[in-house]
Amino acid sequence: MGLVVQKYGGSSVADAEGIKRVAKRIVDAKKNGHQVVVVVSAMGDTTDELIDLAGQVSPIPAGREFDMLLTAGERISMALLAMAIKNLGHEAQSFTGSQAGVITDSVHNKARIIDVTPGRIRTALDEGNIAIVAGFQGVSQDKKDITTLGRGGSDTTAVALAAALDAEVCEIYTDVDGVFTADPRVVKKARKIDWISFGDMLELASSGSKVLLHRCVEYARRYNIPIHVRSSFSGLQGTWVSNEPQGDRKVEQAIISGVAHDTSEAKITVVGVPDKPGEAAAIFRAVADAQINLDMIVQNVSAAATGLTDISFTLPKAEGRKAIDALEKTKAGVGFDSLRYDDQIAKISLVGAGMKTNPGVTATFFEALTDAGVNIELISTSEIRISVVTRAEDVNEAVRAVHTAFGLDSDSDEAVVYGGTGR
Amino acid sequence: MGLVVQKYGGSSVADAEGIKRVAKRIVDAKKNGHQVVVVVSAMGDTTDELIDLAGQVSPIPAGREFDMLLTAGERISMALLAMAIKNLGHEAQSFTGSQAGVITDSVHNKARIIDVTPGRIRTALDEGNIAIVAGFQGVSQDKKDITTLGRGGSDTTAVALAAALDAEVCEIYTDVDGVFTADPRVVKKARKIDWISFGDMLELASSGSKVLLHRCVEYARRYNIPIHVRSSFSGLQGTWVSNEPQGDRKVEQAIISGVAHDTSEAKITVVGVPDKPGEAAAIFRAVADAQINLDMIVQNVSAAATGLTDISFTLPKAEGRKAIDALEKTKAGVGFDSLRYDDQIAKISLVGAGMKTNPGVTATFFEALTDAGVNIELISTSEIRISVVTRAEDVNEAVRAVHTAFGLDSDSDEAVVYGGTGR
Repeated sequence: MGLVVQKYGGSSVADAEGIKRVAKRIVDAKKNGHQVVVVVSAMGDTTDELIDLAGQVSPIPAGREFDMLLTAGERISMALLAMAIKNLGHEAQSFTGSQAGVITDSVHNKARIIDVTPGRIRTALDEGNIAIVAGFQGVSQDKKDITTLGRGGSDTTAVALAAALDAEVCEIYTDVDGVFTADPRVVKKARKIDWISFGDMLELASSGSKVLLHRCVEYARRYNIPIHVRSSFSGLQGTWVSNEPQGDRKVEQAIISGVAHDTSEAKITVVGVPDKPGEAAAIFRAVADAQINLDMIVQNVSAAATGLTDISFTLPKAEGRKAIDALEKTKAGVGFDSLRYDDQIAKISLVGAGMKTNPGVTATFFEALTDAGVNIELISTSEIRISVVTRAEDVNEAVRAVHTAFGLDSDSDEAVVYGGTGR
Repeated sequence: MGLVVQKYGGSSVADAEGIKRVAKRIVDAKKNGHQVVVVVSAMGDTTDELIDLAGQVSPIPAGREFDMLLTAGERISMALLAMAIKNLGHEAQSFTGSQAGVITDSVHNKARIIDVTPGRIRTALDEGNIAIVAGFQGVSQDKKDITTLGRGGSDTTAVALAAALDAEVCEIYTDVDGVFTADPRVVKKARKIDWISFGDMLELASSGSKVLLHRCVEYARRYNIPIHVRSSFSGLQGTWVSNEPQGDRKVEQAIISGVAHDTSEAKITVVGVPDKPGEAAAIFRAVADAQINLDMIVQNVSAAATGLTDISFTLPKAEGRKAIDALEKTKAGVGFDSLRYDDQIAKISLVGAGMKTNPGVTATFFEALTDAGVNIELISTSEIRISVVTRAEDVNEAVRAVHTAFGLDSDSDEAVVYGGTGR
C-alpha cells in the first residue's frame, strides 16, 4: 500500500463533530496500510469571519498582512485534527504550509506554487506519523513571508504534495458525492460520473462546474496524479479523474462527460470595429493591460458593405466595470462605434472527448436547445467542448434539455455513444 | 528618541474598536520619533475558545499540536493590528514568534526562551516599519516546532525583544492603570505605585499580585530593561519598574511597596516527622519528583519529648491531589504520622526593601493583624517580604488592616517610612 494524500474542505471540518468524523476516516486509511498525508481547509466559515474582521479594522485589507491573518484558519483546523487523531491512538503531526515546504512566489493573496520540498513531511511519515498540512498557504521563496494561494488553494496544495511525495492518489473529500453529469440542483436526474479524463474535467471546471477548480486539475494532469473526488460524509466511491482508468473499475464508455453551466459572467460587445489588421489586437491588449482574463471570444465575419465587424467576449461580472473603462480609452485609437454590456447571460457547455470528429454531437446539441425554445447568442467550440451563451433566464431549461438529449439522465438505459466505442 | 517595545494584552485588542484604538496609540509613539516594536496577545477570549474547541475533539489536548492551535490566536490579532496601522497611513509588518527570532527549548505549552535573534525585526524597523510580533510563541531550537511560552508568555516576549533590541523601555499595556499598593477590588483606598524596584516587584508578583508575572520581571531585571506598566485605555502614566528611578520622575520614599494576597494555594502539613537528618529531604524529593513547585515551607523546632516535628508547606491547589499521592507513597520510608490537607487558606504578604533591618515593620504588621482579629497559621520572611497564612475568609479584612497600618491608604498624608529616608 502506498502513500495517499487526502484533502478535506471546510464543510467537512465545520465543527468538533466533523473533525472527529474526519479523524476516524483518516485513521481507517492508516489502518489499511497507507501512509497518509492530510491537507485541511479552515473550519466552516472561519475564513469569512476573518475577512469580516479585517474589513472592520481597514477598508482595503490585502497583501502580506491579509495572508498572515487568513492562514490562522488552517492552523486551527489542522491542530484540532491532529489532536483528534492522537485521541484515536494514532500519531499525528501538523505542519504549516511553510513547514511542509510549499514554496511560492511573492504575489500575496493569490500566490503560485513554484516548488515543493516536503522533507519534514517525509520524515514524519517515516516515523509512523500521519502528517496534517495546512491547505491554501505557503511561504515566499525570496522574502520568506507567509502567502496564500487564492481560490482553490487547498485542493492545489493537496495535488502539489501528492506530486512531490509520489502519492498513489490524491483524494479530495467534499460535501457532494463526486462530479456529476450536470449540477444536481438544476438537473434532478444528473448522474455521478465514475471516471473522467483530466482533459474533460478541465473543460468542465472552466465551464462552471464547481467541484474541482481548473488550477488543481491542471496541476494533477501535469504530474499525472489521479484525483478521487468523494464525500467525507457518505464514504461512497466518488469520481476518479485521471489519464487512464484505475485498475478494474468499470469505465463509462460514453464520450459525453457532462453539461456545465455558468451564470457568473457578463458579455461585452465591441460594435463596429474596422475589419483590418491590428484592431482586434489593440482591443485585447487594452483588456489584458487591465489584468482581466477573458473567457469566450467571438468575432463574426465582417459585413462586406461596411467593412466593420463586431467582437464579443465574456468575462467575470466583477471585472465588467474595469473592462469597459479600459475599452473606452481605446475608442478613439481603434475607432469602434460603441460598447454593449450585458450581465444577464448564461453559458452552457457540453464536454466530451471526440465530439469534434462526430458531427452528430453538435447537431443534437443545437436541436435540443431549439426544441426547448432557447435562443443562442454566442457559440464557441474546442476539441472536446461546445459552449453557447443564452439569456440567463433560460439556463435551467437549456441544461435539462441538453442533459436529456445526450442520454445522461439517470433513468436512461444507456448514455448515447457517438462514434462507436468512444475510448 | 530610541526604540520602544509595547505589549498589548488580549483585553486591549478584544474587538475591532480596541484594535483601532491601539493602532492609534502605536502610531502616536511612531510620530513622536520612536522606533516601535509591538507585541500583541490574542484577542479577548480567543485563546479560551480555542482551548474549548480542543477539549471537544480530545480530552487531553497538550503538547505540540496544542501549541500549533493556540498560536493561531496571536496570528489573527497581529495581522489585524498591522492592517489597522497601515490604514492610518503608516507602514507595519507582522511577524510570528519564529519569524521574530524567538528561539525556545522544546518543552511544549511552557517553553523557555533560550535565544532571541531579531534580524528580521531590525530590518523591518530600519526600513521604516512598525514591527508587530506575536506574543506567547516561539520556535524550538532543535526541532523547529512551534512552541508557546505558557502563562505570562506575551509579557516575556516583549521584555525579551526589548533586551535583544536594546530598547529604552518595555511598555506593558493592560486594562488597569498600573501596579497598586494592594488589590483595588479589596482595598478601595489602594494607591497606584509610580515606581517600584525589580526586587520588590518580584516579591509582589510571587505573592499574588497579578499585574506582572514573576517570569517577565526576572527577565527584565537580568537585562536591566525598564518596564512601564500602564493602561491602554487611559493613556496615563502607569508604574515604572526598574533598577533606578527614571529621569526626573518623583520617587516614593516609603520603604513599603504594597500588600499582596493570594487565595490560589493550599497547605499540606506532614505531621509527626522524626526530627533527624534526611527526613525532610526525603519528603521534598518526593514532591519534587512529582514536578510540583512549593511556595512557603515552614518547619518548627521539634518537641523535645517526642523527637517529632511537623513540616508545612503551601502549593497551588491544582497540585494538591498529586502531592498527597506522592507523599503517601513515602509514608512507610519516612515514618511520619499523617498528612493534613487544607485549601481554605489565604496568604498575605507585605513587600518593601529594608524591612529586615527595621524591626518596627514586623511588629506593626502583626499588631495590625491582631487588631483585626486575624489568626496566623504560618509565617515566612525574606529580606524584603513578610508573608503569613490565614483562614481564607479573613483575607480581605487582613489586607485592609495591613494597608492602613502602613499608611498606604490614598487619603493618608504620607506613607509611613521606617529607618529614615528609605532609599
